[in-house]
Amino acid sequence: MPAKLIDGKAIAQQLRGELAARVATVRRKLGRPPGLAIVLVGDDPASQVYVRSKLKTAEESGLIVKFEPLPGGASLEAVLGLVQKLNASKEIDGILVQSPLPAALGSDAEQQVFDAIDPAKDVDGFSPISAGHLAQNRPGFAPCTPAGVIEMLDRSHIEIQGKRAVVLGRSDIVGKPMAMLLLHRNATVTICHSRTRDLAAVARGAEILVVAIGRAAMVTSDYVAPGAVVIDVGMNRITDASQAARIFANHPKRLAVFKKTGSILVGDVHPDVADVAGALTPVPGGVGPLTIAMLMANTVKAAEARVSV
Amino acid sequence: MPAKLIDGKAIAQQLRGELAARVATVRRKLGRPPGLAIVLVGDDPASQVYVRSKLKTAEESGLIVKFEPLPGGASLEAVLGLVQKLNASKEIDGILVQSPLPAALGSDAEQQVFDAIDPAKDVDGFSPISAGHLAQNRPGFAPCTPAGVIEMLDRSHIEIQGKRAVVLGRSDIVGKPMAMLLLHRNATVTICHSRTRDLAAVARGAEILVVAIGRAAMVTSDYVAPGAVVIDVGMNRITDASQAARIFANHPKRLAVFKKTGSILVGDVHPDVADVAGALTPVPGGVGPLTIAMLMANTVKAAEARVSV
Repeated sequence: MPAKLIDGKAIAQQLRGELAARVATVRRKLGRPPGLAIVLVGDDPASQVYVRSKLKTAEESGLIVKFEPLPGGASLEAVLGLVQKLNASKEIDGILVQSPLPAALGSDAEQQVFDAIDPAKDVDGFSPISAGHLAQNRPGFAPCTPAGVIEMLDRSHIEIQGKRAVVLGRSDIVGKPMAMLLLHRNATVTICHSRTRDLAAVARGAEILVVAIGRAAMVTSDYVAPGAVVIDVGMNRITDASQAARIFANHPKRLAVFKKTGSILVGDVHPDVADVAGALTPVPGGVGPLTIAMLMANTVKAAEARVSV
Repeated sequence: MPAKLIDGKAIAQQLRGELAARVATVRRKLGRPPGLAIVLVGDDPASQVYVRSKLKTAEESGLIVKFEPLPGGASLEAVLGLVQKLNASKEIDGILVQSPLPAALGSDAEQQVFDAIDPAKDVDGFSPISAGHLAQNRPGFAPCTPAGVIEMLDRSHIEIQGKRAVVLGRSDIVGKPMAMLLLHRNATVTICHSRTRDLAAVARGAEILVVAIGRAAMVTSDYVAPGAVVIDVGMNRITDASQAARIFANHPKRLAVFKKTGSILVGDVHPDVADVAGALTPVPGGVGPLTIAMLMANTVKAAEARVSV
């Protein structure tokens, strides 16, 4: 029996629907809707796609969005100055600086910029104080992707407590916060990475497997215990025909999409895992919509905190 | 063959010996040795023992120690005021507030006090910003006990990278930071706790097993793979004769100590684990001395950061 597909789009829509009443309350108490500022430096095409999608969802959710584009040649001082201005703004509850920043700004530019965001407005949850609050299980903003994974599990009635959860990947924005969130929900959590020995065997020990490694279709069926819940955070665009033919050999409809358009999105999890897993998130339409929905939820939460002050 | 005993006292002495040159450099550049303030609120007997031990070691290490006792009835405002004064002091590089604070101060008093410590002086590493820096693998102060465990492993030439490490316990001051430190050293890390199913089996999967659960001798031989490295963070005082007789049935010398004094210290790891493990930290004389040595190391590091400013 093929895996149950976890419909991220539907769950995200449900979540955004529930936000409407909270947005209305903020609007009544503050005299304006929750306000989200999105800073985009330069014109990276992938970043433009992400930002457009966030802008669209924010508007659909009834938020005020302030789009703050800066030219690719902007100095670090200019970016930091903009962040300070947004920190001080009474109209803005949440600040998102789209990653990655242009390489020319220097290797620690992102760190400096994320550090500069007021923790009360850090709706992306990337600042060290947000990471510390998460590690200590205190109120604060968790990064949107792992927070969205928890929402997906909860709203799919998948129990977390007592389960063996394995997280593949240890990034600051997905792997490590994911491990913390699962741990605080009483899972027994294992964190794996490129230096993990016998990765497939460790992954096969998981009842809940979260994959965030950024390698197309790397997690094949031998990584997955029969019946396991598999959450695929990966989002890789494939343009190589032979790679697409290999990955989608048993999925003629997907392959037809590739043949028509010349490219296709694939997760870190091989599509054939659907024959082994108990439940699986699709790519696209799985984790992605939840990430954006959680950004909205974090912004509404930030506005609510301001109301209660 | 019984486990190799990892001699924490000797390793701590070695580490403190290496600090001497750094202390001398600070003294030359700042005109004074590194300064550590220790705040003790009330007269909890165990806290007094710990504080005395820290004071003694700090003095032996050539640090200036400012002991700041407050009466048990001190208000939270008084404690916070003292912390602010120490934050501002140019003579003080590190601030330690002995935990636990009196219960009368309220359940979130420790959090408020730790939050108030200047991150540059947070040598205990308990503040959320320190926890965030640790989670993001950035420079900062890691809590002394897990940092001391890493020192013990390194100085015992036990490789961490690629190993399966299991941490029993998920406290903010030992379990979670321990997991982060092992992860950043490229171990594959599993975090277990009271809700973990089949704990013994999960623990048996460890090549490096760190136990910090606060239950005397709970980890018995069936939790340990033959040859595993076992780090015992527990420190439990036993005064019940039948419990002592049970735990130390195969250790007549330890039992004789109990019979003579009426009490004995035992870790979270059962002493019979020595017959299975490849290496084991004793209690006392294992992790404890390293915790205090790392407090000294963190204070020297804080002073060095001040010199370089």
